[in-house]
Formats: sequence, structure tokens, C-alpha cells
Amino acid sequence: MDMEKVNSMDFGEFVEVFGNVVERCPLIAAAVWSQRPFSDLDDLEKHFFAFIDALPQEGQEGVLRCHPDLAGRELQLGTLTAESRREQTAAGLTSLEADERRRLAELNARYRARFGFPFVLAARRSGRAAVPAELARRLHRPRAEELRAALREVRTICRLRLADLLGAADPAAP
Amino acid sequence: MDMEKVNSMDFGEFVEVFGNVVERCPLIAAAVWSQRPFSDLDDLEKHFFAFIDALPQEGQEGVLRCHPDLAGRELQLGTLTAESRREQTAAGLTSLEADERRRLAELNARYRARFGFPFVLAARRSGRAAVPAELARRLHRPRAEELRAALREVRTICRLRLADLLGAADPAAP
Repeated sequence: MDMEKVNSMDFGEFVEVFGNVVERCPLIAAAVWSQRPFSDLDDLEKHFFAFIDALPQEGQEGVLRCHPDLAGRELQLGTLTAESRREQTAAGLTSLEADERRRLAELNARYRARFGFPFVLAARRSGRAAVPAELARRLHRPRAEELRAALREVRTICRLRLADLLGAADPAAP
Repeated sequence: MDMEKVNSMDFGEFVEVFGNVVERCPLIAAAVWSQRPFSDLDDLEKHFFAFIDALPQEGQEGVLRCHPDLAGRELQLGTLTAESRREQTAAGLTSLEADERRRLAELNARYRARFGFPFVLAARRSGRAAVPAELARRLHRPRAEELRAALREVRTICRLRLADLLGAADPAAP
């Protein structure tokens, strides 16, 4: 898909295509549509990032809270979004042993209880062993620092999903 | 459901229950959770309204763009949210004659083209004859005025959905 195509979309098409580049936040794509035309992928993602950056803190935490746990209940129930399922599968999280799954569930619960939002990670870039290690590491950070780190992951996920949709090469982390 | 129950919810439960009181904007419920505890229904809805009011204009338009057309494509396809389907059914929009449906589709398309967001109406409070009449009336308003009117409809829908969930009597329009 090229930018000319993107820029010609009405808001219905745009939200259908880009509504989940920030997990379960079609509101953001629906707002970004106001900023068209976009010159390229960088320009498009810039508007997604700017919208998130301008949210009040509870809104940024809200964005995080729209994310599922990694290897969590929604993966078990089959209720993940298509994008999350693909990413968790690529990270090997669909084929964990029972004890790995239990360990991750316990870490996820501790993280949620401590920070009030779920552990968010651009899973596609991690191996199944790296996920619990990273989670255990981030669990002990100060809250403000961890919020910033989690939002960086949201931006990386957004960038990778946009690049997928636009057929771009796998980009560097933002 | 009483407020004690609401205030005891973790963010996962809260977003599951209240995630669609603003149509397809779980981000807003996920942000509002930060403001708990809530004293009553008025207090809870106040936080939803405050979040929408504080959004930049493109964010407010984004909220509108997450709404489906009335008697539109999603009703035909069966892809409406449960709440929208219930409301459009209550307004009689599921049993339109072919010519009423065509007339409404044409008005919806003109409205979208003029304003860049869909026609939003708390349909449950309208009869099937009132919907196209109201749409035709609002189609000729100045854009800024129509944006304000559409956001009032979002608040009414939010208030009615919250009251449903909390088992409150049908409230007055906000």
C-alpha cells in the first residue's frame, strides 16, 4: 500500500486499516485521519506518537491498559486481536510449557498490581525466554520510569504494525 | 451493580464492563479507571465526560468516527457492537423499508462528506421517522456547532449505557 492510497481513504477505511496499530485504540487512528495527507511512513507514525504524547497521564496509562497480557488469559481464550496473536506467536508464547506459562502469569499479576497497567513489550522482537527475564527486570523500576519505558514499547509496536501494513522493511526501534 | 462493586474492579474487569460506554473507545474507560473510587453514577460519568472534553479537537472527532452509521453497512453486516445493535433495534432501524434505508444511507453519506465524521444520535430516544428528519436538519449546520451537538449525543449515549450497566432508572439527557 502506498501513501497515495492511504491519503485517499475516507475515515471509515482508514480506521478499518489502521485502527489497531495502537492496540484496541481505534480512537487514535480516527483522530490521526484529521492530519492527512501524510508524506510517508515516518510522517504517519509521527502523528500517532504525537497523539499519545499529548494525552494526559491517565490517558497514556489507558493506552497501556488496552493491551493484553503476554501469554495470558486472552491468548488462552482466543480473544486476542489478530495483530497480538501474530506477535505473541512469533515470540513463541503460544508454545510455552505449563511451568513457563505459570511463571509468566505470576510475573504479569505482580506487574499489574504494582503499576496499575499491564506489562507491554514489542514481543515479536523477543524470544520466549527473554520475555519473563525482561518482565522481572522491569518489575522493580520506579513507576514514572516504567511508564515511559512501556510507552516506548507501544511506539515500537505501532511502528512495526504500520510498517507491516505499508509493506515497508522492518524498521529500527523509534 | 453498586458502586462498591465498581470501585473494587481491577482495570481488566473495569474495561471489560465499561469499555464500550463510549462506542469503540475502551481507551477512555481504561483512563477513567485511574480516577476511582467513584461516589455514584454522576461522579463516574463526570470522569468520562471530562476525558472527552479535554481531548484536542481531532481526538473529539476521532471519538465520533468510532461510531457506526445508523441503519448503515455494519447493521447489514452484523458487525455492530452489542450496545449499538440494541439501540438501533429499539429505534426501529432494523425494520426499515428499502426506500427508508436508501434515503438514510444517502443522508449519512452526505453528512460524512460534509463534516468528516458520521451522524451520531442517541437512537434509542428517537423513532425511525425522527432519525432521517433530525439528520436532514443537522446536515445544514455550521461545522463547529454540529461538532458540539454530536458530542452532546455521545454524552447522552454514554449516560444511558452507564445507567443500564448500573441498573439505574433511565436518566435525563445531560
